[in-house]
Amino acid sequence: MTEVTTSPVNASAELLARRQRVLGQGYRLFYQEPLHPVRGEGVWLFDAQGKRYLDVYNNVASVGHCHPAVVDAIARQSAQLNTHTRYLHHAIVDFAEDLLREFPADLDNLMLTCTGSEANDLALRIARHVTGGTGVIVTRWAYHGVTSALAELSPSLGDGVTRGNYVKLIDAPDNYRQPGAFLASVQAALAEMRAEGIRPAALLFDTIFSSDGVFSPLAGEVAQAVQWVRDAGGLFIADEVQPGFGRTGEAMWGFARHQVVPDLVSLGKPMGNGHPIAGLVGKSALFAAFGRDVSYFNTFGGNPVSCQAAHAVLRVIREEQLQQNALWVGHCLREGLQALAQHHALLGDVRGSGLFVGAELVSDRENKTPASAEAVAVVNTMRQRGVLISATGPAGNILKIRPPLVFREEHAALFLDTLDAVLTEVAQR
Amino acid sequence: MTEVTTSPVNASAELLARRQRVLGQGYRLFYQEPLHPVRGEGVWLFDAQGKRYLDVYNNVASVGHCHPAVVDAIARQSAQLNTHTRYLHHAIVDFAEDLLREFPADLDNLMLTCTGSEANDLALRIARHVTGGTGVIVTRWAYHGVTSALAELSPSLGDGVTRGNYVKLIDAPDNYRQPGAFLASVQAALAEMRAEGIRPAALLFDTIFSSDGVFSPLAGEVAQAVQWVRDAGGLFIADEVQPGFGRTGEAMWGFARHQVVPDLVSLGKPMGNGHPIAGLVGKSALFAAFGRDVSYFNTFGGNPVSCQAAHAVLRVIREEQLQQNALWVGHCLREGLQALAQHHALLGDVRGSGLFVGAELVSDRENKTPASAEAVAVVNTMRQRGVLISATGPAGNILKIRPPLVFREEHAALFLDTLDAVLTEVAQR
Repeated sequence: MTEVTTSPVNASAELLARRQRVLGQGYRLFYQEPLHPVRGEGVWLFDAQGKRYLDVYNNVASVGHCHPAVVDAIARQSAQLNTHTRYLHHAIVDFAEDLLREFPADLDNLMLTCTGSEANDLALRIARHVTGGTGVIVTRWAYHGVTSALAELSPSLGDGVTRGNYVKLIDAPDNYRQPGAFLASVQAALAEMRAEGIRPAALLFDTIFSSDGVFSPLAGEVAQAVQWVRDAGGLFIADEVQPGFGRTGEAMWGFARHQVVPDLVSLGKPMGNGHPIAGLVGKSALFAAFGRDVSYFNTFGGNPVSCQAAHAVLRVIREEQLQQNALWVGHCLREGLQALAQHHALLGDVRGSGLFVGAELVSDRENKTPASAEAVAVVNTMRQRGVLISATGPAGNILKIRPPLVFREEHAALFLDTLDAVLTEVAQR
Repeated sequence: MTEVTTSPVNASAELLARRQRVLGQGYRLFYQEPLHPVRGEGVWLFDAQGKRYLDVYNNVASVGHCHPAVVDAIARQSAQLNTHTRYLHHAIVDFAEDLLREFPADLDNLMLTCTGSEANDLALRIARHVTGGTGVIVTRWAYHGVTSALAELSPSLGDGVTRGNYVKLIDAPDNYRQPGAFLASVQAALAEMRAEGIRPAALLFDTIFSSDGVFSPLAGEVAQAVQWVRDAGGLFIADEVQPGFGRTGEAMWGFARHQVVPDLVSLGKPMGNGHPIAGLVGKSALFAAFGRDVSYFNTFGGNPVSCQAAHAVLRVIREEQLQQNALWVGHCLREGLQALAQHHALLGDVRGSGLFVGAELVSDRENKTPASAEAVAVVNTMRQRGVLISATGPAGNILKIRPPLVFREEHAALFLDTLDAVLTEVAQR
């Protein structure tokens, strides 16, 4: 008999083969060499071989991987009671009251779901119900979720998803490539709906325009667009699944940057630091009009464990001043990236807000040609060197730099040093 | 200054008032006097006043409220790592392999979501994508979930939800009121689609027909219906969100009762004993055909914590032989109910499978007039006496008796004694 030893790398390869046998083939893995993390702490992930990775990607574990306050809240409530919203429980009420304090007074009601997809889908149902319209305006490379209705509103999923003519696409407010296009396309979308006899139900966008490429509209642009949509009878739904909960630094919610108060605000990803909770905040009159006609019950939505998890996250964001941290370290990150742009021609544009940063790679600054292959190389080389990022946008050439909110200046420095070396290496290939 | 003391009852009233201010007005509470539980253990819930309630309703906490094995699994993995399926992790692979052992060999792939709604919505997307059809056949009082697409397939939500003509309603296999109607209506639905040029995508039903009123089709009826639908180009999606995971006693899945192998099987509620996890099991060829054209990523779906929770539930079901318990105690429950029917004219019919029992109340056995008001009275009086049940069906006159699977003979005896007394009391009013 021979003794067979399996190296850690083989263990990952074996796990990958087993995974491919049992999971639906739609499942994808990040990186040319998939990551196999087994432990997380703060801004660090540790793989099966004990190697540590600086996490500059995961916005879900926003208060840091395995934050003890959140872990404790989940463990404690799980051991005590986990039921549903058809019974009275203090956890949902305490959390709802506390969360709503973070919103303008008009936004005074909460409904809870398990995922951002469920929140956006519910927003859509409410908007269509109360306006009587069907038309929805979304950005050209939007992503809003995985349900049948949201896939239609998520052109970034590709051409495999067909959409009805009641979905109108607008340009994201991309002031690097096409300033002014955003407002012009909103006008065009509304005109098209009028011509086709489609009543608008909503304008829906991610307030940081993440999948489109991370953009900041000019002052007043969003308010103008929202006004036009409201004049035409539609609502404004702010998708805060990615920018919400302090990430943009300037405010708790991304819509505050745009000086508008939405009608409905969907929340998700970082809400429970990875525990599946999401929700919809809105004007009570809208919820009441919907609730009068339609019964809505989400079995897991608003259960005591999920509410305790989300409440712990909210408290940590405040106590550790993570919004302020996002503002400051995000500023340092962008300054650092702009400095790198001085000697790396690949870095065409640096933008974003707080700890949601986009860095656009171009192979030619004059023509702004998207450097898509280089972005793939940068992302994978960074991973080899122990730093996790990703890329976004229609051409996949915009580095997505979006760490947990406990990312500090020292982490930003390590990230920038690594990126500096990797940009040099990739440019020389 | 006067000292103000608040009684526990007032505390619940105050909590209710606070709840109504902050939660969307669509939220409903069970019972004329809402329940305010603060602790759960096994088949028991304890309210804020320390009173205990026998839980004969909650199918989500299926291995018992706060089962230590599930609580531990959640607490341990939460403290270690919680990420997503774009990284390799053993928990999802171990769970998927183990879960798929419980299915016929044809059903060889798993996709994970957070809720049964997401699972059914994904099933629908896949069915429409691979068949090229849009038509869906559901029962007349079906409930399949809360998304825009599923609300259309859930007529039990009421007339506030409009549906397209590609949704066709069939009669549930109700052999108490209308034997034979099920198959005839499937034929009629398919004929209607042919006449309207609608291609069928799927036949979708809950294999225990819960919202319709808890029914058991005659042998061969379901197989015949599925054959007709497949001949017309559609798939059969088994909604196992309620009957799955051993509840029906005879088998792990409700579809086994009907001697058919579905194309897709949606799972949910009891899967994580209250932790938000759900999923879709199906033929790998279907997932592959969908995955080739459409990108699907569910942020929280299949995260390590959810997988550990669900894996713990699966192990407990096996180790504590809960399917066998459901078979035996369900049998005792139905025998006991049939004995009660000897001297309670209200009890018109007793049916179900395992620990999913329906008891239909009629004010007149000859005409089978639904005793809807009496059902409300029975449910509320039972609650006053410390036993939790609910009612279902279009007329709300069918008692829904559906306890955690750790419900034993002694609990069945307590339930039956209480129901006996309550039926006497309600009949005398």
